[in-house]
Amino acid sequence: MAKKFSTRAEDYSQWYNDIVKHAELAENSSVRGSMVIKPYGYALWENMQHELDRMFKETGHENAYFPLFIPKSFFSKEASHVEGFAKECAVVTHYRLKVDEDGGGIVVDPDAKLEEELIVRPTSETIIWDTYKRWVQSYRDLPILINQWANVVRWEMRTRLFLRTAEFLWQEGHTAHATEKEAIEESKQMLEVYADFAENFMAIPVLKGTKSPNERFAGAVETYCIEAMMQDGKALQAGTSHFLGQNFAKAFDVKYVSKENKQEYVWATSWGVSTRLIGAIIMGHSDDKGLVLPPKLAPIQVVIVPIYRGQDQLDAITKEVKEITKALRAKGIRVKYDNRDTQKPGFKFAEYEYKGVPVRFGIGPRDLENGTIEVARRDNLTKEIMPMEGIEDKIVVLLEEIQQNLFDRAFEFRAKNSRNVDTWEEFKIEIEKGGFLYAHWDGTPETEQKIKEETKATIRTIPLDAKEEEGKCIYSGKPSNKRVVFARAY
Amino acid sequence: MAKKFSTRAEDYSQWYNDIVKHAELAENSSVRGSMVIKPYGYALWENMQHELDRMFKETGHENAYFPLFIPKSFFSKEASHVEGFAKECAVVTHYRLKVDEDGGGIVVDPDAKLEEELIVRPTSETIIWDTYKRWVQSYRDLPILINQWANVVRWEMRTRLFLRTAEFLWQEGHTAHATEKEAIEESKQMLEVYADFAENFMAIPVLKGTKSPNERFAGAVETYCIEAMMQDGKALQAGTSHFLGQNFAKAFDVKYVSKENKQEYVWATSWGVSTRLIGAIIMGHSDDKGLVLPPKLAPIQVVIVPIYRGQDQLDAITKEVKEITKALRAKGIRVKYDNRDTQKPGFKFAEYEYKGVPVRFGIGPRDLENGTIEVARRDNLTKEIMPMEGIEDKIVVLLEEIQQNLFDRAFEFRAKNSRNVDTWEEFKIEIEKGGFLYAHWDGTPETEQKIKEETKATIRTIPLDAKEEEGKCIYSGKPSNKRVVFARAY
Repeated sequence: MAKKFSTRAEDYSQWYNDIVKHAELAENSSVRGSMVIKPYGYALWENMQHELDRMFKETGHENAYFPLFIPKSFFSKEASHVEGFAKECAVVTHYRLKVDEDGGGIVVDPDAKLEEELIVRPTSETIIWDTYKRWVQSYRDLPILINQWANVVRWEMRTRLFLRTAEFLWQEGHTAHATEKEAIEESKQMLEVYADFAENFMAIPVLKGTKSPNERFAGAVETYCIEAMMQDGKALQAGTSHFLGQNFAKAFDVKYVSKENKQEYVWATSWGVSTRLIGAIIMGHSDDKGLVLPPKLAPIQVVIVPIYRGQDQLDAITKEVKEITKALRAKGIRVKYDNRDTQKPGFKFAEYEYKGVPVRFGIGPRDLENGTIEVARRDNLTKEIMPMEGIEDKIVVLLEEIQQNLFDRAFEFRAKNSRNVDTWEEFKIEIEKGGFLYAHWDGTPETEQKIKEETKATIRTIPLDAKEEEGKCIYSGKPSNKRVVFARAY
Repeated sequence: MAKKFSTRAEDYSQWYNDIVKHAELAENSSVRGSMVIKPYGYALWENMQHELDRMFKETGHENAYFPLFIPKSFFSKEASHVEGFAKECAVVTHYRLKVDEDGGGIVVDPDAKLEEELIVRPTSETIIWDTYKRWVQSYRDLPILINQWANVVRWEMRTRLFLRTAEFLWQEGHTAHATEKEAIEESKQMLEVYADFAENFMAIPVLKGTKSPNERFAGAVETYCIEAMMQDGKALQAGTSHFLGQNFAKAFDVKYVSKENKQEYVWATSWGVSTRLIGAIIMGHSDDKGLVLPPKLAPIQVVIVPIYRGQDQLDAITKEVKEITKALRAKGIRVKYDNRDTQKPGFKFAEYEYKGVPVRFGIGPRDLENGTIEVARRDNLTKEIMPMEGIEDKIVVLLEEIQQNLFDRAFEFRAKNSRNVDTWEEFKIEIEKGGFLYAHWDGTPETEQKIKEETKATIRTIPLDAKEEEGKCIYSGKPSNKRVVFARAY
């Protein structure tokens, strides 16, 4: 940890890469665009999965698993879906290798060509609606409330660890309903679940809203999203929930017999969040000393570092630490005791600081004498001497305090970097400063496209809570009745 | 559930397929060889994952995630590995589709051909050892104790749900060690973990042993396995743990500097179990009335069916059931109350019987008067009237009893269908009856191969606890010092 890493001011992008790499979250693999998620990064993802999975089950969903491969023809069935997803993808064309007779090692066996190519799923609407067709006959078979935890592949040309990789991990919910109303309610409910998770677990405030048609999911009637602000002022889409109407039901001919004995097409939603959220956590909270993790998701919440000379001192500290660890674990706190003798305390301090562990205990011989612990907070880098006695209750409160502080800090940052903009001249100046610009827009895809071309800013969301307000489109001057949120985005 | 399903005696294979389909565990998808794991089947898998994951973590392992795709050239690096795995596999050759200019829909873009083909992982030794090369420099970096939960693809020509599918879900542990001794201990430890899981959670007795060279994992020095007997007397390999020696370290040039400051190759293990275990549970316990699940893994442990006429009776029952459910859940029991008004109790009884729910409660108006419940056991199909008062404690005990009974039954079945065989004539007769044949073998791959060709029987395992015993190979007559286990296998 003696190495010097980039700061945000020096090179934001390198700062991000340094954290991903040196906090041991992930690294690039030998396969272009595919990452290796390292144990520390994966433990963070497991904690995220655990909470999300609980929330999904509490709202009535079950998990299932659908095939990795999708027949090519399935993508053609939903007209706008094919445009959005069947382009940059991994295509399986053969099912066998063989030893080259001319000594060229192993080669693809030309005799083992598939009749129809298979696409590695970029998202699973098509294969799932092909399945739902077999599951749905009557209104009694509805709703279907299913989630899948899976890997997906989108052949990205420019990749960044967590934010944009060819393969990534995610969950995708796919539900089927008898009525439009129920499907819309489902997609809104899942938006709320995502917002709850982002704000109360990731400690990142999010805007809730809909997407403009340009940014809508390929195949959706309406896309709901949560949008977060990163520390460089750019937006990051943190989760989407789509009301799909009857588009996929029609594409895959999924009908049900209603209570009134009529044949009706089924209504659909889909919703997903991915390992991209780890990128949001990194850029939402971290500082120039490394990663900062929200306590509720941190793989290690408290790390204990012994400060000693010689085995006797270490033994005495270890004995005390056993009791402390036990008391902390009994409160459900994730603790690690780092008694490695290969590294000095200073090295360990820097390492856990860099890895974003929320609370660090330092315990030395004098602490044993005094019955105290040096408690360091990662979020604000302060230290305090606390009594050992009853430390577990203090830490429960402290972890909550840190969680809240991270949220408040991010909330303040967002507030400071959000503003109304009313003219095109102003817009062009303000967008360079980053942040969210609340501006009037005439509602046309053409205007949005032109703004994007000229400023690289897109409409991140049309907030659900936007108030009615008469105004003029910043670009076209045409009338508008509410402000939408523009920003540059990841 | 009014349908008539096949019995084991009529058609064992169809009986298995009926259970998988009608107990709603899984079904075939539109993609050849790939299955859809339905919510009930996936909930069973989640319970299995949960226990295994806990066991892995308790033995010091962490989870991580490695790429789905493996460059073709990686397979050529370990000589025997390529033989075993790089043949029947899914090959990605292109990364883009495009709209056919001649109106033929979407087609593979010939300009988007990969320079090197990517193989969808059939197992991950190669990509993981390519990664470990970057992680290991010194003895301080060892051991690496990592597990991955993932999907893998092996292009099987003849597939059966859970038992053999092109894509399946599994976990694969991959560990790296400084010494041979430590690596062998690790592979043996994981064999014990698997045996513990099979016997104490799946309620299936297993033989622990090593594989003969013919049946060894491609790239392993030694393969340890657990082997189970199904109800048709065939063997099912339920888990394997491989000591890989330095094969992969040499293939991927993974060396470390020892404490003595010498460059050494790293020692390796890998170990895995898959969704195939669901097939073992089905064939290990189920009967002609459907699936039978071990309570410790059953998604629903107790189902409550109200027996009523009219809303008033239902309301009174529901009120009581709320209390019962609460008491059961407080004991950690997974309960479902099925108050659907679209189906009659008889239909529900048959449905849960078919789905293998260990305990069923029937509660009617007379039960309310008497303070009783009709409790039906799925394992032996007996019923008993029990007092409502304190039912939760009785059920805790009953579930344990059922779990034990399933194990005992399977253990007895195996004992009855295992025997020593000493002559080739006898062997050929006995193998037709199914079961495990303990016989002497001369230790050569040639003999094993000939026995397989003539009888379809393979050496399932060389038991770890096989006692020294002088004998003659049943096939060649050559001397042998212990019996090995022959059977036909899934």
